[in-house]
Amino acid sequence: MKLWEKSVQVNKDVESYTVGHDRELDIYLAPYDVLGSMAHITMLESIGLLTKDELSVLLKELKEIYSIAVAGKFEIEDGIEDVHSQVELMLTRRLGDIGKKIHSGRSRNDQVLVDLKLFTRDQIHTLVDSVTALIDVLLIQSEKYKDVLMPGYTHLQIAMPSSFGLWFGAYAESLVDDLQLLLAAYKICNRNPLGSAAGYGSSFPLNRQMTTDLLGFDSMDYNVVYAQMGRGKMERIVSFAIASIAGTLSKLSYDACLYNSQNFGFIKLADEYTTGSSIMPHKKNPDVFELTRAKCNKLQALPNDITLIINNLPSGYFRDLQIIKELFIPSFEEMNDCLHMVARMMNEVKINEDILDDRKYLLIFSVEEVNRLVLEGVPFRDAYKQVGLDIEKGNFSHNKKVNHTHEGSIGNLYNDHIDLLKQQVIGQFNFRKVVSAEQALLGSIN
Amino acid sequence: MKLWEKSVQVNKDVESYTVGHDRELDIYLAPYDVLGSMAHITMLESIGLLTKDELSVLLKELKEIYSIAVAGKFEIEDGIEDVHSQVELMLTRRLGDIGKKIHSGRSRNDQVLVDLKLFTRDQIHTLVDSVTALIDVLLIQSEKYKDVLMPGYTHLQIAMPSSFGLWFGAYAESLVDDLQLLLAAYKICNRNPLGSAAGYGSSFPLNRQMTTDLLGFDSMDYNVVYAQMGRGKMERIVSFAIASIAGTLSKLSYDACLYNSQNFGFIKLADEYTTGSSIMPHKKNPDVFELTRAKCNKLQALPNDITLIINNLPSGYFRDLQIIKELFIPSFEEMNDCLHMVARMMNEVKINEDILDDRKYLLIFSVEEVNRLVLEGVPFRDAYKQVGLDIEKGNFSHNKKVNHTHEGSIGNLYNDHIDLLKQQVIGQFNFRKVVSAEQALLGSIN
Amino acid sequence: MKLWEKSVQVNKDVESYTVGHDRELDIYLAPYDVLGSMAHITMLESIGLLTKDELSVLLKELKEIYSIAVAGKFEIEDGIEDVHSQVELMLTRRLGDIGKKIHSGRSRNDQVLVDLKLFTRDQIHTLVDSVTALIDVLLIQSEKYKDVLMPGYTHLQIAMPSSFGLWFGAYAESLVDDLQLLLAAYKICNRNPLGSAAGYGSSFPLNRQMTTDLLGFDSMDYNVVYAQMGRGKMERIVSFAIASIAGTLSKLSYDACLYNSQNFGFIKLADEYTTGSSIMPHKKNPDVFELTRAKCNKLQALPNDITLIINNLPSGYFRDLQIIKELFIPSFEEMNDCLHMVARMMNEVKINEDILDDRKYLLIFSVEEVNRLVLEGVPFRDAYKQVGLDIEKGNFSHNKKVNHTHEGSIGNLYNDHIDLLKQQVIGQFNFRKVVSAEQALLGSIN
Amino acid sequence: MKLWEKSVQVNKDVESYTVGHDRELDIYLAPYDVLGSMAHITMLESIGLLTKDELSVLLKELKEIYSIAVAGKFEIEDGIEDVHSQVELMLTRRLGDIGKKIHSGRSRNDQVLVDLKLFTRDQIHTLVDSVTALIDVLLIQSEKYKDVLMPGYTHLQIAMPSSFGLWFGAYAESLVDDLQLLLAAYKICNRNPLGSAAGYGSSFPLNRQMTTDLLGFDSMDYNVVYAQMGRGKMERIVSFAIASIAGTLSKLSYDACLYNSQNFGFIKLADEYTTGSSIMPHKKNPDVFELTRAKCNKLQALPNDITLIINNLPSGYFRDLQIIKELFIPSFEEMNDCLHMVARMMNEVKINEDILDDRKYLLIFSVEEVNRLVLEGVPFRDAYKQVGLDIEKGNFSHNKKVNHTHEGSIGNLYNDHIDLLKQQVIGQFNFRKVVSAEQALLGSIN
Repeated sequence: MKLWEKSVQVNKDVESYTVGHDRELDIYLAPYDVLGSMAHITMLESIGLLTKDELSVLLKELKEIYSIAVAGKFEIEDGIEDVHSQVELMLTRRLGDIGKKIHSGRSRNDQVLVDLKLFTRDQIHTLVDSVTALIDVLLIQSEKYKDVLMPGYTHLQIAMPSSFGLWFGAYAESLVDDLQLLLAAYKICNRNPLGSAAGYGSSFPLNRQMTTDLLGFDSMDYNVVYAQMGRGKMERIVSFAIASIAGTLSKLSYDACLYNSQNFGFIKLADEYTTGSSIMPHKKNPDVFELTRAKCNKLQALPNDITLIINNLPSGYFRDLQIIKELFIPSFEEMNDCLHMVARMMNEVKINEDILDDRKYLLIFSVEEVNRLVLEGVPFRDAYKQVGLDIEKGNFSHNKKVNHTHEGSIGNLYNDHIDLLKQQVIGQFNFRKVVSAEQALLGSIN
Repeated sequence: MKLWEKSVQVNKDVESYTVGHDRELDIYLAPYDVLGSMAHITMLESIGLLTKDELSVLLKELKEIYSIAVAGKFEIEDGIEDVHSQVELMLTRRLGDIGKKIHSGRSRNDQVLVDLKLFTRDQIHTLVDSVTALIDVLLIQSEKYKDVLMPGYTHLQIAMPSSFGLWFGAYAESLVDDLQLLLAAYKICNRNPLGSAAGYGSSFPLNRQMTTDLLGFDSMDYNVVYAQMGRGKMERIVSFAIASIAGTLSKLSYDACLYNSQNFGFIKLADEYTTGSSIMPHKKNPDVFELTRAKCNKLQALPNDITLIINNLPSGYFRDLQIIKELFIPSFEEMNDCLHMVARMMNEVKINEDILDDRKYLLIFSVEEVNRLVLEGVPFRDAYKQVGLDIEKGNFSHNKKVNHTHEGSIGNLYNDHIDLLKQQVIGQFNFRKVVSAEQALLGSIN
Repeated sequence: MKLWEKSVQVNKDVESYTVGHDRELDIYLAPYDVLGSMAHITMLESIGLLTKDELSVLLKELKEIYSIAVAGKFEIEDGIEDVHSQVELMLTRRLGDIGKKIHSGRSRNDQVLVDLKLFTRDQIHTLVDSVTALIDVLLIQSEKYKDVLMPGYTHLQIAMPSSFGLWFGAYAESLVDDLQLLLAAYKICNRNPLGSAAGYGSSFPLNRQMTTDLLGFDSMDYNVVYAQMGRGKMERIVSFAIASIAGTLSKLSYDACLYNSQNFGFIKLADEYTTGSSIMPHKKNPDVFELTRAKCNKLQALPNDITLIINNLPSGYFRDLQIIKELFIPSFEEMNDCLHMVARMMNEVKINEDILDDRKYLLIFSVEEVNRLVLEGVPFRDAYKQVGLDIEKGNFSHNKKVNHTHEGSIGNLYNDHIDLLKQQVIGQFNFRKVVSAEQALLGSIN
Repeated sequence: MKLWEKSVQVNKDVESYTVGHDRELDIYLAPYDVLGSMAHITMLESIGLLTKDELSVLLKELKEIYSIAVAGKFEIEDGIEDVHSQVELMLTRRLGDIGKKIHSGRSRNDQVLVDLKLFTRDQIHTLVDSVTALIDVLLIQSEKYKDVLMPGYTHLQIAMPSSFGLWFGAYAESLVDDLQLLLAAYKICNRNPLGSAAGYGSSFPLNRQMTTDLLGFDSMDYNVVYAQMGRGKMERIVSFAIASIAGTLSKLSYDACLYNSQNFGFIKLADEYTTGSSIMPHKKNPDVFELTRAKCNKLQALPNDITLIINNLPSGYFRDLQIIKELFIPSFEEMNDCLHMVARMMNEVKINEDILDDRKYLLIFSVEEVNRLVLEGVPFRDAYKQVGLDIEKGNFSHNKKVNHTHEGSIGNLYNDHIDLLKQQVIGQFNFRKVVSAEQALLGSIN
């Protein structure tokens, strides 16, 4: 069944080619499609396009479908094109002609727009939770290991004293900046496209503010042509934020793989978290970090993947946009899996507390020595030259104590400031308002 | 079961995270894995690491597994990590300790390398057939409609006379150049990595030339470190060729969507190939071309997707490379689907034979007029100015006959040369040699 | 002269290879480098590493260099590696050993970090102004042409009534969302990395809060390892925002090229804004939009370009990061040029007010007719079928009046809401605070 | 002066915006533009559109301009739009009206097409030489250090014995595969677009085979619509090959940076090839490899950059294509610089011959031990378990001799086969034919 079917049947091969993966992907959208419909028909009743009684039976039925969907039991039947058609079919089976009425004043174009926005808003909520959990692990580990020194590198050359306190904390702060970007994506997402119909609005006297409020959106996508233009654009912007998180995790994983190498030996994974080799009995491989790195590198490709699909399309809806779903929808689960696994690994990783016992790391104290001389009154450039010559001649020595006191340094990590910044950013996601709007909508027929 | 299992069990969550989609994707590799093993053990026997009898029972069993795999019935059991482990398990179940012996002198690293190369070689064969079929359709249509003129555009401005003969033929020739690139990818793919083991070769006296011959490869990847380094590189190079084909189809689809718009009206799709709108009853949408465009744009992202995974990895195997399979393996089927659909659409598309009846296209003959004046002796720049002024004043006229005679022009399409070039390129794929090598290997135990 | 020169001279070819384009690009950073130094030494004095007198002469000299830089007269001399070295050289020439003292407690790593952040912050300010100016032009045009109807397309098929009011306004609103993303980038940028030295902090008792305040930053990049990790990350995040703006302009340009085609004829550019053909005298090509599209498509590649450079680098500084400057620094000027040109073209573009006189656009009123029937009580799906059959039989007719009243529709553009949203976003950029901090710093020695 | 100027002057700002970087970039094309013109007019004379005398004076003048161009003295004057206009201007200044005649039967569209192909063909020639030189260095070093062992890594875990012989040789072979891809790009490039005019051919009786022969092309781009469609496509395909070379160099550079770290210490650069730190006197940084990596990563972005510009453009010329020149033309010099620098570094790098003296590398011999047991008759899986347990208990020992004998292994590098493959690929570039065609064309008027 296709909502738009004309007197000529569509060729079967073409049908299967065009439907593509929609039937699987739309399962993810089902609960949101129902929510969107509930808001839409509540509004339709308010402008006289449905009677109170019609609204009431429709809402009841939709709420049932919603329960099925959140229970993971929603199915798109053979021959049904997409989630929108399936929902309408379920309604008309039960309610007859009334079921057809829910489609007044909207198009599948704004229906899928609102579905994607509600879905994405919810997924961002989950992402924020996962990122926050990882930040918390990292900050705890940073505090726990704040006194364990490690060499800091520049150019992969041994450079200056660093610490596990700094290392863990740095990734926590990086994720806070990623949240900042995710917040912008959330704000751009959290605007209501419903009422834009096929991208040009409707001749019905719709009340778009009402559906905006019912669904807990911050505002409308005002201009109806822009509402449609947001398809693909919203996904790309969200993918920027995902790519940023993924970039942070990819780098952390790279560090972990390097530090886990016998040539560094800074960290170790428990045996149960490593894999072996089919021919080399001594191997304990950090596959879990390698795969995280690769998964995150794949996620970092997402913005470009989406760009290639949407770019150079003029304004107005094109079926091309459907393919974005294949790329976009699964990316949240992939990102979350990575976040959970990294949180777990960071929580359980074993730290080598004696790294600096190795004499090759002595040179990391050269700047300390330079600075000591400066504090004694030697001009910086002269101190620098003198230490450099000492090193060239093999005369350099220094004790292994580090006294860094300024903000964000080894001795003063400022993790509380990072945590505060995290809270400030998270506080700007209005998840509570959204959740209560959705609950109100669902509860309205109890 | 994991081939490398140590005394400590791997954590279940980590196991499922690391196995990822391997168990589904490896199904595609199963027949090739068996072929590779058959060649490998035939060679092992020749250097005394297997007895003749052992070889014989192993080959018999492997041939059976091959039949299962090509029949689409190969399954990777729960708890089995990948295709390599599953095959070894099936052998040891039937044959006991002998089954374990096939793994001498190789690693899963070169095993998956050879699987991927045999798989890709086969997929390229299929792609070449699909591309060729589409070229043939395009050349037939080019000849059929060689006398139907259409306006040629530059800057999307009406420019000069063109024809459907030119339009169809151009895409045929573009695909021939794409085949040229695919040929290079094939040559780079068709070299044997077997014997590189974990990327550093083996202390066994392997005979790599023998497996090269048995599997019908052009040559070895000689250097064993390079053989391993080819993982990812080969896939990227093949993806370049896929992206090039996809680029051609994307552009063709773009033309088709544009020409199918009422503002052009150059082509029409039969009703059974179009879809409608849920709110606009008059719509007959070219979704099939829009989706082809989007799918091909997704395929054009593939090289960058792979690059992001392999880039900045130093030499030596990393588990990251596993993720490439998720991107690479499905791309062949997607590409083929698009090629088949476009061939079908190009075969059945309806052409508007009266486009130039519309007066707005008159100006396409302005250059014809300029050239006519030049042939009468007027210097080019002067002729150009005169016609330009005529047009500005609204005085321009010209009959609608076109007399282009040079190579590759409206009146002389040179399709036979395009076809010849196609044949020359295709002739350089040595598919016949490959097929007979594989058949010989499979037949060797009859 | 190189700040780090040892007893062995660097090979000349290597030197020129490694310096690359730095000497040209660093000119852009010069004024910001001076500002950063002024803040740094003011802080150094406060912790006793400079005397009051030393600070005073150094600030005076730096302020002079600043004037040279903003006047566009700063030059990096032959043999001088970068802006940092040049500034130090200018100081030591005038002031001798005192000049060398400014480098205490910092490294070129945090110096270039702060330079890039100050530069970017300023460039974002300029971008915001350019985007705002374009939004204003678009909103003005939207109001001016709000009653001029045009066909709205889906699938490039004639679909429903739209208007120039909607078309202009849609792009205005798209740019507001782009500003939202730019705001997040700004916030991430506007944090102080100074004091992170080579990425591991300093043994001097630096006062990072002081330089943060002096330079008008929102806060510090707290963790010094993160401060260094932000190199490349910040640029990528800003490039996301640039890509988003560029995506909006690219789409607008695509529309303009299409609508300027004789097959649409919706808009026209004045002759003085079009170019011609060397052989086709009648051509008036919209090169200005084509080039904008291509420039913006190039800018949309920027995030991926940066990703490829920074990806898979472990933590810690690498010289690779230098190459990002080649891509990043010029992108602001390119983006601004495009914004200015589009604002100008949108301001002067001529609108075809009689598009709908063409009979082929009649079908855009089919949904209006469906809805009219619905409002008369016909169920939607039945109305849809009836109108569809009328169209198939050629019986469809409708008057050309459109009565869309809901929010964001043809008759109710909600441009004031778009403008308000714009102001709300712009209000969150704290440019005023930044400007006054910089002025205070520069004025501190008058 | 613009060839197409109409009665209305183009706005100055628009002119400068549209000309962009063309005037600088076109300098690279100047000699090729002249060559293309010489072939074109020789053909024009053969079909009666020029007299013998006209041809003679024109050729003489063009040859002079050619000399100016190859001497690097060609300049595009203020107000002149591009190389084509400048050449025509120089001719008309000297020869008057005859100069105008060279433009018959072509457009700037096919003129720039042929310029780009001749330029690219030449640049590929240079690239092949640079790649070959690097391969030769690598093969020499591979032979020189074939007995110096190093640990081979998988997962960055110490794995098995490798050697500098293998390491150098692997990159040599990788570059040979890159040449294979470059060869395909060359073949696709080396076809003549001249005669396609604005993309739809000409009503003049052009002899395209004649210009094909005169310019030494393999064949024509037959179909004139395809000839135009090749713009952007050719550049992208060449960029694939450049990206592949760049990928090889990026990986090699990554290895070099890693091996140069004190944590590996496998290789060393002479002091004169390293740089220092402004605050850490002991640093000897491998900037040259880091910058090579970053430059090559930038080059690997090129295919995607071009794709974003050309993608989703329908057929026919668009001004967008001009922007590709900004990306494409400079890439050859960047690639060549990297190739030269890497050849130099690889030639002079110092090898640590005592790496395996470090006890931590002992475990690389575990597979050797497993295989030894297998050759003594122990089944592989049992031998694997036994050695694994020995290692876990700390009992493992092995001498440091390696006896790998098969093709491509430590003891049998097969560098001669790599060299042979290189020669076979290079032999298929028909540079000699091209050079002699160009010389014949230039010599035809002596």
